[in-house]
Amino acid sequence: MEDKPGNVSIEQERFQLRRLEISDKKKGFIELLQQLTVCESVSDKDFEERYQELAKHGDEHVICVIEDRHGGKIVASGSVFIEKKFIRNCGKVGHIEDVVVDSSIRGMQLGKKIVGFLTDHACSMGCYKVILDCSLENKPFYEKCGYKQKEVQMVKYFI
Amino acid sequence: MEDKPGNVSIEQERFQLRRLEISDKKKGFIELLQQLTVCESVSDKDFEERYQELAKHGDEHVICVIEDRHGGKIVASGSVFIEKKFIRNCGKVGHIEDVVVDSSIRGMQLGKKIVGFLTDHACSMGCYKVILDCSLENKPFYEKCGYKQKEVQMVKYFI
Repeated sequence: MEDKPGNVSIEQERFQLRRLEISDKKKGFIELLQQLTVCESVSDKDFEERYQELAKHGDEHVICVIEDRHGGKIVASGSVFIEKKFIRNCGKVGHIEDVVVDSSIRGMQLGKKIVGFLTDHACSMGCYKVILDCSLENKPFYEKCGYKQKEVQMVKYFI
Repeated sequence: MEDKPGNVSIEQERFQLRRLEISDKKKGFIELLQQLTVCESVSDKDFEERYQELAKHGDEHVICVIEDRHGGKIVASGSVFIEKKFIRNCGKVGHIEDVVVDSSIRGMQLGKKIVGFLTDHACSMGCYKVILDCSLENKPFYEKCGYKQKEVQMVKYFI
């Protein structure tokens, strides 16, 4: 569904983009992540501990979500963290991770909103670039978000 | 040059792998990074500030170097930082960045030692995987280090 003039205000009212809050666990945040990859259910205690650990990083590690006010569910999410380097005049790089949109609600440009928010955040933090890894299948989506392929991602699993 | 039994002790004496120290700026650390990418000269003040910022992260952001005791120069370096997630049972992922070996001293397996150290560190920190981005040209090197290609890296530059 394209954003049309008549839809904008309705959509803005329905979909709220904001930072992750502790209460989002009850709004289906973990179930949303389960659509992305292996994500066992997390206890309230473990969730709160990890939430507080990430909160210590302040603007250097941000998780954003979109809440669908029709039903009060979290329907999209993504994260970005800021890496500090010595190269590029002690520059910074934004790393986008774990972008996901609820499979039942795709085609509403919610993924683009998430990536746009995370990209803008990296820019506002003074990063000289922002990077992410994706499957070849998702490459066209990120190209629509203004990204270009550069390198290849290599991985080593421990478990 | 392959590691041969007779060379090991001599090499171990010559090449010392350790964490970055503030005094490494005087040992050519920035000049080494200049072989990797754009890296303007950094003032002592800026270097120390960034060093201290990174030090705050403790074991969650480690830069290692190899010093060549013949001449007291830094001849190899690489970094790894630990990202905390909610997925994978509140798992962690290691991100390896900025691996570089002095062009005058390649073929001594120093790159492999750097990647091995950073990979082991990510493992010891409880990461379920470690990832990095590289050019297609460098892919065979990382395959020798036990890595496999998985996804593609996308980038957006701000400057």
